[in-house]
Amino acid sequence: MPVTTPQRGRLITLEGGEGAGKSTLLRGLEAHLRAQGVDLVVTREPGGTTVGEAVRGVVLDAANNELCAEAELLLMFASRAQLVRQVIEPALAAGRWVLCDRFTDASFAYQGGGRGQPVERIEALEAWAALALKPDITLLLDLPVSTGRARAAGRGEADRIEVEGDSFFERVRGAYRDRAAAEPARFRLLDATSTPDVVLGQAIQGVSGLLAGVGS
Amino acid sequence: MPVTTPQRGRLITLEGGEGAGKSTLLRGLEAHLRAQGVDLVVTREPGGTTVGEAVRGVVLDAANNELCAEAELLLMFASRAQLVRQVIEPALAAGRWVLCDRFTDASFAYQGGGRGQPVERIEALEAWAALALKPDITLLLDLPVSTGRARAAGRGEADRIEVEGDSFFERVRGAYRDRAAAEPARFRLLDATSTPDVVLGQAIQGVSGLLAGVGS
Ligand SMILES: Nc1ncnc2c1ncn2[C@@H]1O[C@H](COP(=O)(O)OP(=O)(O)OP(=O)(O)O)[C@@H](O)[C@H]1O
Ligand SMILES: Nc1ncnc2c1ncn2[C@@H]1O[C@H](COP(=O)(O)OP(=O)(O)OP(=O)(O)O)[C@@H](O)[C@H]1O
Ligand SMILES: [Mg+2]
Ligand SMILES: [Mg+2]
Repeated sequence: MPVTTPQRGRLITLEGGEGAGKSTLLRGLEAHLRAQGVDLVVTREPGGTTVGEAVRGVVLDAANNELCAEAELLLMFASRAQLVRQVIEPALAAGRWVLCDRFTDASFAYQGGGRGQPVERIEALEAWAALALKPDITLLLDLPVSTGRARAAGRGEADRIEVEGDSFFERVRGAYRDRAAAEPARFRLLDATSTPDVVLGQAIQGVSGLLAGVGS
Repeated sequence: MPVTTPQRGRLITLEGGEGAGKSTLLRGLEAHLRAQGVDLVVTREPGGTTVGEAVRGVVLDAANNELCAEAELLLMFASRAQLVRQVIEPALAAGRWVLCDRFTDASFAYQGGGRGQPVERIEALEAWAALALKPDITLLLDLPVSTGRARAAGRGEADRIEVEGDSFFERVRGAYRDRAAAEPARFRLLDATSTPDVVLGQAIQGVSGLLAGVGS
């Protein structure tokens, strides 16, 4: 008896600096995709699994200020390997779509651009973990560092990343933009200084090409 | 003004399966080395740092039974990278000795032998993390799996490793013995079925070559 294999799902990732509006956009985009009939899994990084959330606690804990660059990267990829195998791959294989708040590009931006780990070293870890999985679309919310930090400032105590200085976040922004420029087919560069509604509109347009045939 | 650089310290690691007597031996060996005038740092893996102890909680938590092989290895090396940079390297550079309950050999035995991750993949991660650091002496407590498990059984609930079956621990033992056979100059193979006093005596003899000149 032939079994119908569902068409493989799509992976959409949201990237950007602190306070760029990723989590805000995620909620709007989630509602839009579900309304279009997309069977959707929403997750985040680091996190998204029991293991990943524990790792998130470790890397964001401001008390862990001695965390070395190598351990930070290894932890990020541990969370990612688990998320891909436990959540993302099974969902995509079952034909479901996945919307993920941050993914591998964030390691290149934060641990690469921000902390200065060479791109080749991050790529080596990506290859080791067999995480060649590329998002179908990556929405990059770009905005001046000061604007994002001002937005994020209202949220109580700063975590281990947020305590970094402006130059760190300028390097993060630059690394994100470099990646977007290097892979224009995958990235959608969104102007995150616009209002949430305008940003959502840009994002909906950015993913519209993926939606042909869904819900029919 | 010339500054006297202390002679680099020594790294001694203790390895072996569950209930082999590593922690018991560690206490005896620690007392012996201190009595000989060794300035000693005692630590363990995974763990030994704030980050490492958090990782230990994640990898040993029996509830994390979905932890994939890649994430487990990445977490182990994250703990190790942090321990080496924050504790072991500074101690050795200051002329202090380090006694560590498990180290890199355990990844080859447990994630390699036990879980079947290829040796080359573990070596690649070791190289990536720049953890070429080799112990001066590794004391391997060898004993039949059933003996070790019977000893460990009295300790309350089994952790995520201890719930594995005997064949897992047979592979762990085999991998440890293979490594000892491949590096006879570094390894001391101890008969861990002997009484604690006899094991301690073997260990003291095993490290005696390192002690020349200490405390003088
Ligand atoms: N387009 C926008 N214009 C103005 N304010 C916004 C916009 N999008 C989000 N905000 C506000 O900025 C703050 C940060 O937004 P959000 O949490 O979505 O950002 P984020 O990118 O997820 O941040 P983080 O990197 O810390 O997770 C929130 O108070 C949110 O309401
Ligand atoms: N040589 C020995 N002979 C008999 N019993 C021993 C011996 N060494 C340790 N034991 C006992 O066996 C149990 C396990 O010992 P220990 O905790 O030192 O092992 P371990 O190798 O550190 O175990 P684990 O791998 O779980 O950390 C303890 O109850 C300890 O008292
Ligand atoms: Mg957010
Ligand atoms: Mg022990």
